[in-house]
Amino acid sequence: MKIKLYKNDLPDGLDLGPIVAIDTETLGLNPFRDRLCLAQLSSGDGVCHAVQFMPGGYNAPNLKKLLSDPNTIKLFHFARFDVTMFQRHLEVVTAPIYCTKIASKLVRTYTDKHGLKDLVRELLGVDLSKEQQSSDWGAPELSERQLAYAGNDVAYLHRLKEVLDTMLAREGRTELAASCFNFLPTRTALDLAGWGEVDIFAH
Amino acid sequence: MKIKLYKNDLPDGLDLGPIVAIDTETLGLNPFRDRLCLAQLSSGDGVCHAVQFMPGGYNAPNLKKLLSDPNTIKLFHFARFDVTMFQRHLEVVTAPIYCTKIASKLVRTYTDKHGLKDLVRELLGVDLSKEQQSSDWGAPELSERQLAYAGNDVAYLHRLKEVLDTMLAREGRTELAASCFNFLPTRTALDLAGWGEVDIFAH
Ligand SMILES: Nc1ncnc2c1ncn2[C@@H]1O[C@H](COP(=O)(O)O)[C@@H](OP(=O)(O)O)[C@H]1O
Ligand SMILES: Nc1ncnc2c1ncn2[C@@H]1O[C@H](COP(=O)(O)O)[C@@H](OP(=O)(O)O)[C@H]1O
Repeated sequence: MKIKLYKNDLPDGLDLGPIVAIDTETLGLNPFRDRLCLAQLSSGDGVCHAVQFMPGGYNAPNLKKLLSDPNTIKLFHFARFDVTMFQRHLEVVTAPIYCTKIASKLVRTYTDKHGLKDLVRELLGVDLSKEQQSSDWGAPELSERQLAYAGNDVAYLHRLKEVLDTMLAREGRTELAASCFNFLPTRTALDLAGWGEVDIFAH
Repeated sequence: MKIKLYKNDLPDGLDLGPIVAIDTETLGLNPFRDRLCLAQLSSGDGVCHAVQFMPGGYNAPNLKKLLSDPNTIKLFHFARFDVTMFQRHLEVVTAPIYCTKIASKLVRTYTDKHGLKDLVRELLGVDLSKEQQSSDWGAPELSERQLAYAGNDVAYLHRLKEVLDTMLAREGRTELAASCFNFLPTRTALDLAGWGEVDIFAH
C-alpha cells in the first residue's frame, strides 16, 4: 500500500471514486474523551490517502464533503466507531455507509469472529498484522510502521465488500444489510447523545 | 373501555382513524413457539376492537390492510414484540410505527422504568392492573377479566403519545425517535431471522 500523508484535510480536487474505503485512528475508544488523529481513505487502487489531525485542527471541508456526499458509499469495518468520531470531531453526518462487520455478522453465521483480521484471513487468505493497533496515534510524527498499519486497514475493504456482497445475495440478505447500514447514522447519534451502552430496542 | 370481540379478523368497513393503538396477547414470549391469540385495536375513542385468533385461523385481510397501510400510524407499547408476532403469524410488515417504550427511553432519562404501568402511572396518573397478564390467552372463551385487561392495554396509548411527543419536542429528540421507529421493521426481521438475542451494532 502506497501512503500519501496530508495535514488536516484531503487536498483539493482528489477524486476517490464511488466507493471509498475509510478507517480512523484515535487516541482511544471513548468518543467524548479521545480525539481523532488520523483518517485513512482509499479508492481501492492500492493508494492510501491519510489525513493527520493536530489537536484543534478539525476543519476539513474536502473530507467533510466526501463523507456527506450522497453519491459516494463510505466503506468501513465497524463503521459505528469511525462515524461517531467523524460526527463528534468534524460535525459531519456520514452517509451512505457500508459496514463489513455488520455484513459479516449477517452472513458468516458459522463463526463469532468478525474482526477485520478474521475476515481478511478467511475471505482473502491474507494475514493482517495488528501490532501497531495500540500505539500513540496523537504523536506529531507518525512512524513508518504506524503508517503502514494505517494503510493496511483500508487496503482490503473493497475486496471484502465484493466477497460479502456475493454471500449476502446468496443468502437473500442484501436488503436486510442495507436496512442495518441505513440505521448507522441514528445509532451513532444515540451514541453521542449518551445512549452508547443502551440497546434502545431491548425490552 | 368498551370491548367489541371479533373472530379471526376485523369487520369490513371499520375506520379506526389515522392513529390506531394496538396490542397483542400471545401464548408466550417466543415468536417461534407461541401463537398470537388476540389483537386489540382502538382509535382512541374508548372502544377496543379485539380480534381473537383460533389455532390456524390466521387469514385476516382487513387487519393486514390496516397494519401495512402507509397512512395509518400503528401505536404500540414495545412495538418490537407485537410487530414480530404479526409478521410471523399474519405474514405482514407493520408500518409506520410509533412505540411508547422507545419514546419513553428517549425522554424519561431520569428513570429506568419504562413498563406500560410505569408510564401510565407517571404521565397520566392512572393505576393500571397487570393481574391478567399471565393467563391462558389461547382459551376458546376469554373471561371478562381477560377482556377488560386486554382493553386497558390500548386504552391509554393515544394519551401517552401526546405527552411523550411534547417531551420529545421539548428535548429536541423528535427526529431521533422517528429514526428509531423506522428501524423497527428491520429489528423484527432480524428477530425472525434468528438474531433476536444479538445486537447487530455491537463491536
Ligand atoms: N468496543 C470496542 N472494542 C474493540 N474495538 C473497538 C471497539 N470500538 C471500536 N473499536 C475499533 O473497531 C475497529 C475494528 O475492530 P475489529 O477488527 O476487532 O472488528 C478497531 O479499529 P482499528 O482496527 O482501526 O484499530 C477498534 O479500534
Ligand atoms: N422479553 C420480554 N420481557 C418482558 N415482557 C416482554 C418481553 N418481550 C415482550 N414482552 C411484552 O412486552 C409488553 C410490554 O411490557 P412492559 O409493560 O413491561 O413494557 C408486555 O405485553 P402485555 O402488556 O400485552 O402483556 C410483554 O408481554
